[in-house]
Amino acid sequence: MSSSSYTCTAPELAALQNLLNGTAGDFFCNKLQAVSDQLSATSRAVDTTYLLFSAFLVFAMQLGFAMLCAGSVRTKNTVNIMLTNVLDAAAGGIFYYLFGFAFAFGRGKHSNGFIGHYFFGLKDVPNENFQYDYAYFLYQWAFAIAAAGITSGSIAERTQFAAYLVYSSILTGFVYPVVSHWVWSPDGWLSASKASGLVFGSGVYDFAGSGVVHMVGGVAGLWGALIEGPRIGRYNHEGKPHAIRGHSATLVVLGTFLLWFGWYGFNPGSFVKILVPYSSGGGSYVDGQWTAIGRTAVTTTLAGCSAALTTLFGRRLITGHWNVLNVCNGLLGGFAAITGGCSMVEPWAAIVCGFVSAWVLIGFNILAAKMKYDDPLEAAQLHGGCGAWGIIFTALFAKEEYVFQVYGLSPDGISSRPYGLFMGGGGRLLAAHIIQILVTAGWVTATMAPAFYILHKFNLLRVSGDDEMAGMDKTSHGGVAYVFHDGDGDGDAQIHPTGFMVKASPSISLTP
Amino acid sequence: MSSSSYTCTAPELAALQNLLNGTAGDFFCNKLQAVSDQLSATSRAVDTTYLLFSAFLVFAMQLGFAMLCAGSVRTKNTVNIMLTNVLDAAAGGIFYYLFGFAFAFGRGKHSNGFIGHYFFGLKDVPNENFQYDYAYFLYQWAFAIAAAGITSGSIAERTQFAAYLVYSSILTGFVYPVVSHWVWSPDGWLSASKASGLVFGSGVYDFAGSGVVHMVGGVAGLWGALIEGPRIGRYNHEGKPHAIRGHSATLVVLGTFLLWFGWYGFNPGSFVKILVPYSSGGGSYVDGQWTAIGRTAVTTTLAGCSAALTTLFGRRLITGHWNVLNVCNGLLGGFAAITGGCSMVEPWAAIVCGFVSAWVLIGFNILAAKMKYDDPLEAAQLHGGCGAWGIIFTALFAKEEYVFQVYGLSPDGISSRPYGLFMGGGGRLLAAHIIQILVTAGWVTATMAPAFYILHKFNLLRVSGDDEMAGMDKTSHGGVAYVFHDGDGDGDAQIHPTGFMVKASPSISLTP
Amino acid sequence: MSSSSYTCTAPELAALQNLLNGTAGDFFCNKLQAVSDQLSATSRAVDTTYLLFSAFLVFAMQLGFAMLCAGSVRTKNTVNIMLTNVLDAAAGGIFYYLFGFAFAFGRGKHSNGFIGHYFFGLKDVPNENFQYDYAYFLYQWAFAIAAAGITSGSIAERTQFAAYLVYSSILTGFVYPVVSHWVWSPDGWLSASKASGLVFGSGVYDFAGSGVVHMVGGVAGLWGALIEGPRIGRYNHEGKPHAIRGHSATLVVLGTFLLWFGWYGFNPGSFVKILVPYSSGGGSYVDGQWTAIGRTAVTTTLAGCSAALTTLFGRRLITGHWNVLNVCNGLLGGFAAITGGCSMVEPWAAIVCGFVSAWVLIGFNILAAKMKYDDPLEAAQLHGGCGAWGIIFTALFAKEEYVFQVYGLSPDGISSRPYGLFMGGGGRLLAAHIIQILVTAGWVTATMAPAFYILHKFNLLRVSGDDEMAGMDKTSHGGVAYVFHDGDGDGDAQIHPTGFMVKASPSISLTP
Repeated sequence: MSSSSYTCTAPELAALQNLLNGTAGDFFCNKLQAVSDQLSATSRAVDTTYLLFSAFLVFAMQLGFAMLCAGSVRTKNTVNIMLTNVLDAAAGGIFYYLFGFAFAFGRGKHSNGFIGHYFFGLKDVPNENFQYDYAYFLYQWAFAIAAAGITSGSIAERTQFAAYLVYSSILTGFVYPVVSHWVWSPDGWLSASKASGLVFGSGVYDFAGSGVVHMVGGVAGLWGALIEGPRIGRYNHEGKPHAIRGHSATLVVLGTFLLWFGWYGFNPGSFVKILVPYSSGGGSYVDGQWTAIGRTAVTTTLAGCSAALTTLFGRRLITGHWNVLNVCNGLLGGFAAITGGCSMVEPWAAIVCGFVSAWVLIGFNILAAKMKYDDPLEAAQLHGGCGAWGIIFTALFAKEEYVFQVYGLSPDGISSRPYGLFMGGGGRLLAAHIIQILVTAGWVTATMAPAFYILHKFNLLRVSGDDEMAGMDKTSHGGVAYVFHDGDGDGDAQIHPTGFMVKASPSISLTP
Repeated sequence: MSSSSYTCTAPELAALQNLLNGTAGDFFCNKLQAVSDQLSATSRAVDTTYLLFSAFLVFAMQLGFAMLCAGSVRTKNTVNIMLTNVLDAAAGGIFYYLFGFAFAFGRGKHSNGFIGHYFFGLKDVPNENFQYDYAYFLYQWAFAIAAAGITSGSIAERTQFAAYLVYSSILTGFVYPVVSHWVWSPDGWLSASKASGLVFGSGVYDFAGSGVVHMVGGVAGLWGALIEGPRIGRYNHEGKPHAIRGHSATLVVLGTFLLWFGWYGFNPGSFVKILVPYSSGGGSYVDGQWTAIGRTAVTTTLAGCSAALTTLFGRRLITGHWNVLNVCNGLLGGFAAITGGCSMVEPWAAIVCGFVSAWVLIGFNILAAKMKYDDPLEAAQLHGGCGAWGIIFTALFAKEEYVFQVYGLSPDGISSRPYGLFMGGGGRLLAAHIIQILVTAGWVTATMAPAFYILHKFNLLRVSGDDEMAGMDKTSHGGVAYVFHDGDGDGDAQIHPTGFMVKASPSISLTP
Repeated sequence: MSSSSYTCTAPELAALQNLLNGTAGDFFCNKLQAVSDQLSATSRAVDTTYLLFSAFLVFAMQLGFAMLCAGSVRTKNTVNIMLTNVLDAAAGGIFYYLFGFAFAFGRGKHSNGFIGHYFFGLKDVPNENFQYDYAYFLYQWAFAIAAAGITSGSIAERTQFAAYLVYSSILTGFVYPVVSHWVWSPDGWLSASKASGLVFGSGVYDFAGSGVVHMVGGVAGLWGALIEGPRIGRYNHEGKPHAIRGHSATLVVLGTFLLWFGWYGFNPGSFVKILVPYSSGGGSYVDGQWTAIGRTAVTTTLAGCSAALTTLFGRRLITGHWNVLNVCNGLLGGFAAITGGCSMVEPWAAIVCGFVSAWVLIGFNILAAKMKYDDPLEAAQLHGGCGAWGIIFTALFAKEEYVFQVYGLSPDGISSRPYGLFMGGGGRLLAAHIIQILVTAGWVTATMAPAFYILHKFNLLRVSGDDEMAGMDKTSHGGVAYVFHDGDGDGDAQIHPTGFMVKASPSISLTP
């Protein structure tokens, strides 16, 4: 309901002045205007509070990634991977401010369906026309850095640090913004919100980014990992895989829980506003975006829970033990899958989503081993594979009522929108979503594969075998992550029995 | 104040049409209706924002528990305890969705004072009649998994994983929901909000669950730990206790701070709504739930601070050193104690609460050692003991004005409610609270003790002595939590001098 | 806009009763009053939600400090430093409740420009006159404990625990509250909000405390570290510095990200309220504090990002490797610098702020090494140095429009306020800010240097050389932080090859 409904329009005021008298009419309309102004200010304050705290939660996922990645690699590469996660956020902040946001959400005359071209360096933000305020930029930045974080997992433990800086800049500053423009900008060619010419008369419903974020990060990682090849020792000369275990299950669990925590900003937060009543014909609103947001938090939760339990028992059948790392990855795969449709499905459907997602991840992991593909975080399988499943899932299970809540009436005048195939909504949505999977994979391949390949050709991608064996922390980052030996007085060893380098700790060679 | 106060009632509209004329009267009342609708939508958006972010904070406590538990056990069982914490959340999500929430908060014809029987699988949620929206479910789920998390601490380091899955399901899906129904559902027999027949004319004031959550988790843990007995080595053949230290104080501190952080969702969040003005007779509201919520955050903080400092100095007197692990547990005990009365006491009383709580924990720990009781997390002492103290504390210090804010006028027409004995409110509340302690302990004993006993009888509860000595991570979970040895080139050992299993790390035996 | 604009004033009501008739006039005005009451209640609920969750984020910084500090010290002092962080929060809670808040924000007859003298023990809080509610106290408490946390970093690894308790109490309970009174209380002599007599006709703009928090903590740490001297081994007998590495880069990164996360409560949260429309002459508000808050989150982010990247490349030039610990400290320095002006500068200026901040930190670190100053966390350099730079930066880059948003019209009737020198606002602000730097440094020196010196003279400040070599965890805290050796059956060693003390773990000597 627009705010004008509780103020006086000009004809209303004229009629009122006629019925009563000018002064009384003015009086009432002025009071109503003041009330309306305060209601509108309240609305902005409430929505900004909601969006900002959601953005903070999404930012916390970067910490989650850092801990998950750190725990999933060997000690000797821990500093390296954490530094990449810090720099995702830092370089991403500068690049996304300078041009990433403009490519993704730029509107106006220079923008088109492929790419935006406005708001460089936040020029003309806040923008009242397009309702872009600073909080929206912050929220989108937190999303952009998540994509790069996913990719860093795939190429962990063997990539030169300079290569990391290059691909991460390209991904955050260009490749990801373009995809987000396609789907999330009302101008984007895949958008379900654009004024006309919807793909398959439907457009894409990728609410929080199973495709836009997860598939993009996963496919980029896939090409990076393919081009540089597996880590030394991951597959032996007969091609038999050997698990290379990460150094800390505790960090993996810490990271997983932080990602879960942050996902409550990622998925429900994608509504951007919470103070949106849903018109129900008459009377007081009992329904509105607050309910849809709560439901989205619930579907997100249930998909993760279902995927975690399925993975627990599925892996137990396969491996004979209860593996926490697999459960963590299964859980995250469930989240990646539900991300696209979280706002448009019933809670029971979210449980189905998670269940299938667990098997998708198990399947892709088996396939990866067969293909001698090495991805230390299973990032391509998890974010790429489960992300793609999430896109399909949405096309099967999206509920008409909820689609309407999220996307409103069809902009080209058709009063209904397509919805999930299994919910009786026909196949148009599925067709659009298959297109999304293909073009997302195609675009990321067309941009990131050459980028990684060029780095590879110039010997800028992979570290040397010696450096890989020694670990990048020693060779590039000035020392290992942990120094558990304090050298408290024994002073007899430069090399500690655990293999930790203690040269950097001087106390053992200095007199008190 | 109901929203009707700013809209026109039918008689008001008729009178107005009479006084002015029909058109002007309709005009004003329509405008007022629009304003009222927006105010009501705003109210829902604000309250949902508040409740959802509180729920996210309570969820973060699960991460806190995971880290606290991990740090408090030996390395060899770290994976095991973390997996139980992940599964609390995951299995809890599915069970609480399917039936836990229905048992706890089900209303309507099939429900009674003992158990709810509606809303299975979130059917008919959101429910306008009972004001249950998805956010409320999410909030209550986060509470339910906390109870199971408490219990897992008591039985750590010696319990079969399958047993964990069984008891956790029973506790989260049935035992805990029933207790929360008694106290927190307006239908519950112990509830202070029910329409008539309040226990001792009072009912129970357990605001955020010193009894409902902490005592339930603690008593369940007590029976589990008693039935399976102490860990090997905890008491020697002469019955003398030996401390078995957890492997990481850092994780304990991390977990404690995360629990503190999350407690701000647990206690102040239990108001569920923040936009509730407190009627003060006339004029603008200067007072309302926002003030009570802030006060609750302050009492929570002060109780924890007071308990931490008391423990610091108390333990220093006893042991001669400044022990961070004791301080952490003391702090958490203070939180568990203030949880029940946090919204109804003055800040100074919260300091008293924490002070006593510290000694309660010290006392129960001495008692536990005398009884050769072994609880790796002190969970029964802390959550059971300090939780019970919190119930008593509320009955002594609850302030009349604040009780009125939280529970409103007495539903049976008596204009005042009982309040704290020391505040001049008489003994009825104390009587009701003693009943609560007894029936809570009784119910949990009657359900969980047999459950643990049956598992024990079928040899499904405790792991074998060999497995316990080897650690469950190796025997059940496919490997230990940490691999600090990267095998960077020395290639001389399958078994690392630190005792870590490095078989899974292949790099030491493979050529580059 | 005051709420009276949408209610009837007495003359308005009289006129209305005259124009229409008494009943209709009363009717409308009563309805408007009810609407007004609900709008006012909404406003309080929204602002309290915003402030409380910001407070929770600031509290999370305490966890960030604990992890950052723990990771930056050697294993043997990990428990010690974490305990100090827990106690900052706990002792700070009690002291700030009893008198710290009263010194800082006390108003009324006993208060003056130097110190407040009211609200001891939260008496008369909530206070309607001064708009101090419980949430405000909680927010300020979280700030107070941050200052003490900063200082603990400077004196880590060599300070007696009792000395820590003494200085921390003085700092949190008195020294810091006085400075915050000067700048942030409307009564304070440096305040830009006081009614008359602004310093240099300007007063100080230190929005979230580059000076009030960071410089105070940093200067206190400087004196502590100077008085007790460097750690054994930090400088050899020729005065050459040797880096003493912390034991865990993972904890440093964890702490850094948590501080980043919490800084979103620290800086944007310092607006305290979000529902404040900015009057723009007419019509609906499109602008208000929500926009300024979002912008503040963006400037905070960009300053940190810019500082991190500058440090990365700057240090790479100097040291030849990509160092994550330096990047983390650089990032935090950028945050400390932007804290003062975050709400008053453009995003591009924040990038400048971070860029310079990185070189300030590098410069002060070089200076510290030359002066043989030892600060394990670089806290004096980072919080003191970058904090001081932030004060200067604000005086150079504060934008007129934003200064007006934050501080409003000049209280002494001058319609404009000074703003940044480089933005054309003249030099008065810079003069006032130079005064702030001098008096802040002077006051902290005058109070904390004697405090540390007295402790030093009575041999209460520094631990003995033997204890320092052994580590404080063993000598004062009952044991080391980590026990990675579970003694699983080999039973052959009391002292583990890694040097961990395992005496406390009895399982190796007990039969199963």
